[in-house]
Formats: sequence, C-alpha cells, structure tokens
Amino acid sequence: MTDSFYPPLRTLMGPGPSDVSPRVLGALSRPTIGHLDPHFLALMDSIKALLQYAFQTDNALTLPISAPGSAGMEACFVNLVSPGDKVIVCQNGVFGGRMKENVERCGATAVMVEDAWGDAVNTDKVTATFKTHPDATLLAFVHAETSTGVRSDAAALCAIAAEHGALTIVDTVTSLAGIEVCVDAWGADAVYSGTQKCLSCVPGIAPVTFSDRAVERIMQRQHKVQSWFLDMQLVMGYWGGEGKRAYHHTAPINALYALHESLLMLREEGLEAAHARHLRNHRALVAGLEAMGLSMAVPAKHRLPQLNSVIIPEGVDDAVLRNALLSEFDLEIGGGLGALAGKTWRIGLMGFASNPRNVALCLQALEATLAQQGASVLRGKALPAAQAELDTAA
Amino acid sequence: MTDSFYPPLRTLMGPGPSDVSPRVLGALSRPTIGHLDPHFLALMDSIKALLQYAFQTDNALTLPISAPGSAGMEACFVNLVSPGDKVIVCQNGVFGGRMKENVERCGATAVMVEDAWGDAVNTDKVTATFKTHPDATLLAFVHAETSTGVRSDAAALCAIAAEHGALTIVDTVTSLAGIEVCVDAWGADAVYSGTQKCLSCVPGIAPVTFSDRAVERIMQRQHKVQSWFLDMQLVMGYWGGEGKRAYHHTAPINALYALHESLLMLREEGLEAAHARHLRNHRALVAGLEAMGLSMAVPAKHRLPQLNSVIIPEGVDDAVLRNALLSEFDLEIGGGLGALAGKTWRIGLMGFASNPRNVALCLQALEATLAQQGASVLRGKALPAAQAELDTAA
Repeated sequence: MTDSFYPPLRTLMGPGPSDVSPRVLGALSRPTIGHLDPHFLALMDSIKALLQYAFQTDNALTLPISAPGSAGMEACFVNLVSPGDKVIVCQNGVFGGRMKENVERCGATAVMVEDAWGDAVNTDKVTATFKTHPDATLLAFVHAETSTGVRSDAAALCAIAAEHGALTIVDTVTSLAGIEVCVDAWGADAVYSGTQKCLSCVPGIAPVTFSDRAVERIMQRQHKVQSWFLDMQLVMGYWGGEGKRAYHHTAPINALYALHESLLMLREEGLEAAHARHLRNHRALVAGLEAMGLSMAVPAKHRLPQLNSVIIPEGVDDAVLRNALLSEFDLEIGGGLGALAGKTWRIGLMGFASNPRNVALCLQALEATLAQQGASVLRGKALPAAQAELDTAA
Repeated sequence: MTDSFYPPLRTLMGPGPSDVSPRVLGALSRPTIGHLDPHFLALMDSIKALLQYAFQTDNALTLPISAPGSAGMEACFVNLVSPGDKVIVCQNGVFGGRMKENVERCGATAVMVEDAWGDAVNTDKVTATFKTHPDATLLAFVHAETSTGVRSDAAALCAIAAEHGALTIVDTVTSLAGIEVCVDAWGADAVYSGTQKCLSCVPGIAPVTFSDRAVERIMQRQHKVQSWFLDMQLVMGYWGGEGKRAYHHTAPINALYALHESLLMLREEGLEAAHARHLRNHRALVAGLEAMGLSMAVPAKHRLPQLNSVIIPEGVDDAVLRNALLSEFDLEIGGGLGALAGKTWRIGLMGFASNPRNVALCLQALEATLAQQGASVLRGKALPAAQAELDTAA
C-alpha cells in the first residue's frame, strides 16, 4: 500500500482493454489544463470531428461521454426511453441482457428477441416481433457481441426499425474501428462505443452519436431524463458548440487527450486500412488455431475479426491455462462470459494489438501451454499456417 | 484536427482541475493492464485502503466511481433515494441545486433549506425543517461549496440528521484532503468527492464511501436503483473484495493508477500536514489580496482555505482580466458561478497547487493585470504581506 504501482508489461489480447500505443499513453500524461480553457475547447471540436469520421456520420450530437461504455449504453437509453414505452431488445449474449436492464430501469417494457449465444440476431424474428408489437418505439441491439465474438447485421436491423417507425439504439463498443460502422448509411439513431477496444485508448470514455431524429425525441420528452449526469439536454450545453459552453461537469481532460490521439492514429491509417488489417490478422490467427487442432466457436460468416471465440478443448482447465499464459508469457486472453464461462476463450486482436507479432505470440504461447497441460495439440503447425495466411493477404 | 495536441503549461488556480503533480502524470501513463489482472486487483485493495485513510473511515464500501464527481453525487442519490421519499436538501450555492435535481429525478420530494450564496448552511433552519418534516429519510448538504468557497458544519448537520433518524449524503468534492473530512466521526452515511480538487489527480473519478447503515438501506430497497451503471449492489460485486470479483464494467485502469499515486502522496504527507499547508498558503494569499486593496467575499469563519472567493472591484471586466491572466501569465483562476458570475473570482489553492510559489504568482499577476486594466490597486504591498504571513506560520 505504501509503494508506487508499477504494472507488469502485458500483451492484452482479451476482450478489452487492448494494448494502448505509447503514443496514446504519451498524450494521456500531458499537463492538465482547465475544461473551459480555449485550447481545450478547440480540442473538443477536433475530437467531435474525428468521432464523426470514426462513426461515419454527420450527426451534430457526437461526443465522448465522461464514463465507460456501459454509461454510454445508459446515456442512450435514459435519453430515448420514457416510462411506459415499449422497446424491442435483441439478445444474443451478455450485453443484450444489460440493455433489457436499462429499459426496465427506465420504467419501460422490454420485448425480448432471443437468439442463442454465438448466433447472430435473427432479422426475421425482429420483423415478426414488430408485427406483434407495432407500438414499439425503439429497437436496441448489439452490433458486435463482446461476450461471444458475433457480428449482427446492423444495416438490416436499422432498416426494419425504420420501416416500423421505430428509432434504434446500437452497441458498437467492440466494432468501432475494427469493422465497418456506418451510422448514417445504416440510419442508426443512438450509437455508443468504448475507448478500450479497437480505438486502443485507455478505458473510461464512451463515444456516442445521436441522429437528428433522436435529438428531436430528446427535446420533446415530457418526462425528465432520470440521470442528471447523462441528460443530453444538459450535456449539449457544454459539448454543443453553439456559442458559449456552459459548465455541466468537469470533463476528464487527460483521458480526452488520449482519445484525441487514438482517433488521430485511426484517421492517419484510414478506416478501410484499419478494417483490412483487422481482417488479415484475424485470418492468420484462425489459420494458426485450426492448424493446431482447435475449433472456432462462431460460424465463419458471423465472426468478428477483432474478437475470436475459441472452443476450450475437453479436459483443459480454463483458469489454469489462462494463468499460465499470464505468468509465463505476460499474455492476457479472455475467458467466456455468462453461459460460456469455462467453455470458450475470447482472443482479441483489437486496434493497436491487431498485428502479426501478437498473432505469433498468441499461437506460440497457446501451443506451449496446452502441451504443458497435456492437451492434444498439433505442434509446429500453427505459426507456418498463420504466416501462409499473412503472405496470401499481403 | 490533424495534429497531436500539446496543451499550454498552465498554473491551475481555479475551482478545479488543480495542478497535477508530474508524479501522478507519470503513474497515469504506465502501461495498461486488464481489469481482472491479479496485479490490478491488488491495486484496487490498496486504493480502497488509501481512500479509507483520506475519508477517515472504516467503511467497507469505499471505492472510486468510474466517472466524475457529479456521477459520484448521483451514485449516492440513486442508491439511497426511492420514489416517494422525502429528502431535506440544503442549498447555499450551485451544488445544492444539483442535489435537488437528483432527488426529483429519483421520483422523490426535495424539501429545500435555502441560505444565501456565500453563507454557510444554517443548522437551526435544518432542525426546524426536520420538525415540520419528521418523515424525511435523508439530509443532503455540501460540506465545501465550490461555487462560493464556503464551508458548512458537517459534524453538526450529521448530528441533526441522526437525531431525527435520517441518513446523510455529504458532498466533499472540494473539501477532501484540503480540510478535515472525518466520515466516521461525523457519522455521515454517503459521502462523495472528486479527484481533480485537493487530491491533485486528473479529473474523471469520484471517490465514494457508504456507511453500514447506508449499505443496509441499499440492500433493503424495494425498487431497483434506476441507474444500472451506478447500482452499488452490482458495483460491489467487482469492488467488494469478498472472494471472486464479478465483471461489472471495465474499470478506468490508468486513471486509477493516477488516483493511487495521488493518494500515496497524501498519505506520505499526512492529512494533518496537508490541512496545515492549505491553511498557511490560504492565509498568505488573503493577506496579499487584502494588502492590494481587494476584499474577500466570504466571512473569515466560513472560508475554505482551498478555494478563495474574491469580490471583483467596481469597473473591472471579469472576462478581460481572466483572459489576460491566462494569456500573459498562463494562470487560470475561476469566475463566479450562477448568481455570482461577474461578481466574484474563485482562486483555488488546492492540493499540489497549494504552495507559496503559486501564492506569489497569483498576487503578482493579479496586481499587474488589475493595474493594466486601470483598476485602483495598491502596488508593491501584496507580496511582502503574503511573505510576512508565511513567515509567521513557519
């Protein structure tokens, strides 16, 4: 308790936080200035423009919430849901369940569309649910389920909601900057993300964006937003950028330095190149894992390149293996969440951490550690298979 | 937008954020590790113990909320207030008004005890209000009003609440580490603070502590806490430290490195020494300000040493003067909030920023800038008066 804390130097290949670039850590530790300093106000404008680029949107109300992704989720729900509303919520993993909690805590009813953990959201079921619940005012779903590594069809889901006159809340915590997130092309209305996944920034901030339709609904609310801290009508007074900035709360200055730097890096690389890089390293990892005899938990067409769910082989103790990776290789991978605990690993290749060096480290460490645990694993095959895939993509 | 952001090097003597020590900035930028890493879990235990020291409490439920001070306020209200409750709220500045908002957004009734901005909370009025509202379940007040620089009598207010069987919510955002905050001795039940004031840490985190009575009330709630993110029953699963830590949200890892380092520095100095330092520099600043002909806005007995409200002399343009301090001296002081905008300045001497060098800088810069603006100011008196006061205290 009486000593400064020096963290071990890990390689972060779990479901997030992911490795943070030294460039971002450097920005994080620049001298703190005031939240109403003219230099900081200019930085806010720059962050807003860069977030619009990352989200692929022209939405004026695009900003970083001063709290983690789950507060970003809550910001979307408390601003768009009023007591008595009916909200269709798609659940195919942990985070759909959290959305249900949010809806109910707003005094509204959640109509659930459930799919198996590891499956994508079934769009036919969503259409059918709108038929039986035509009075639903919102559709909420997770674009990239962090608990399973599954991608759902955001464009199709937003289109269904629009056909039925409902707005959409979309979780892009794990997708943003790893795969395509096209807020305007989708016609999505309230979209939130996190900084600690494919943006490779430190955890603690939640980028959000609201369409003009969403802003209109917020402005027409009859019932005050239940959270003062997350009330967008108040937050807009500081982030809105129309004339004078009104104090709402003290912005997390240094975390926003870091977010700005990570967004700059994304802009420099370009979204398309970032997506291609994630895909390439994902394919190499999968080739290597399969070459050593492991199986992926998610069908190829629904896989997230940035988060790879792998079936834990029979007889392998999840906790023992992950502890060995951590203590011998300083490598963190994720365990399964909820129903998948002990059954899958989640291997992240997110943002700055999505690179061939990490693919090779992970394959080598897994192979060695599985062999130590007496698991049947094909040795010497993984790295060549991964390299062959990298060469193909190059 | 396309360039990295390099902030100017300011001296932060506003109402917060205050200057952050390079030692804290160094900790902030150490490599990120996972929120379930054993090394991080050990750090959490250390942070909890150091927060108990800072708050002077043995409360088991003592932890940092992963969001700014206003979310710390909200965490206290949403967990302790249920719909239909009656809460007595003391208002003598901006933040009492924010408490009222919180109460009402919980579906409860706020019974206001109002005092003039710049006065302390009147304890007789609070006693009288309990007499007319014996069914009030909570008393909420601000220990150190950041908008006015006024200290109220927390011990007396907590005692009144206890006499009437009510729990207390106490705002110590600006007081913690600057003046005495004795949670257990006061018998306070839910106390929140911020990192960007006298802890001299980066903004974005809210230390909170809950008494066993408060925890009991939380556990007995009939109505789910309206915020999922701030629901202490869920947050306890991760921070509680009883056995396995359950994932709730991704902790803001790097910000907690920084908080730990700032708490270590407080512990090394010792609370008493830190309080004495704040008092000594405050006295020097006041002596200097009065020597140049300025007047303090708050009677001496209610003044906060860490936040000094000064009356803006007739004919001086607040914005012009503060812009001149910023551009010529890289010195930030605060303007008045709400009813006091344009009428007072708020000069912070908080945490790391409470030192004789900053006292001298502020006096020199104010004297020069006021003279430039044509204000009547006694020249050459302030620094000697401040130094005499420092010498007395040494």
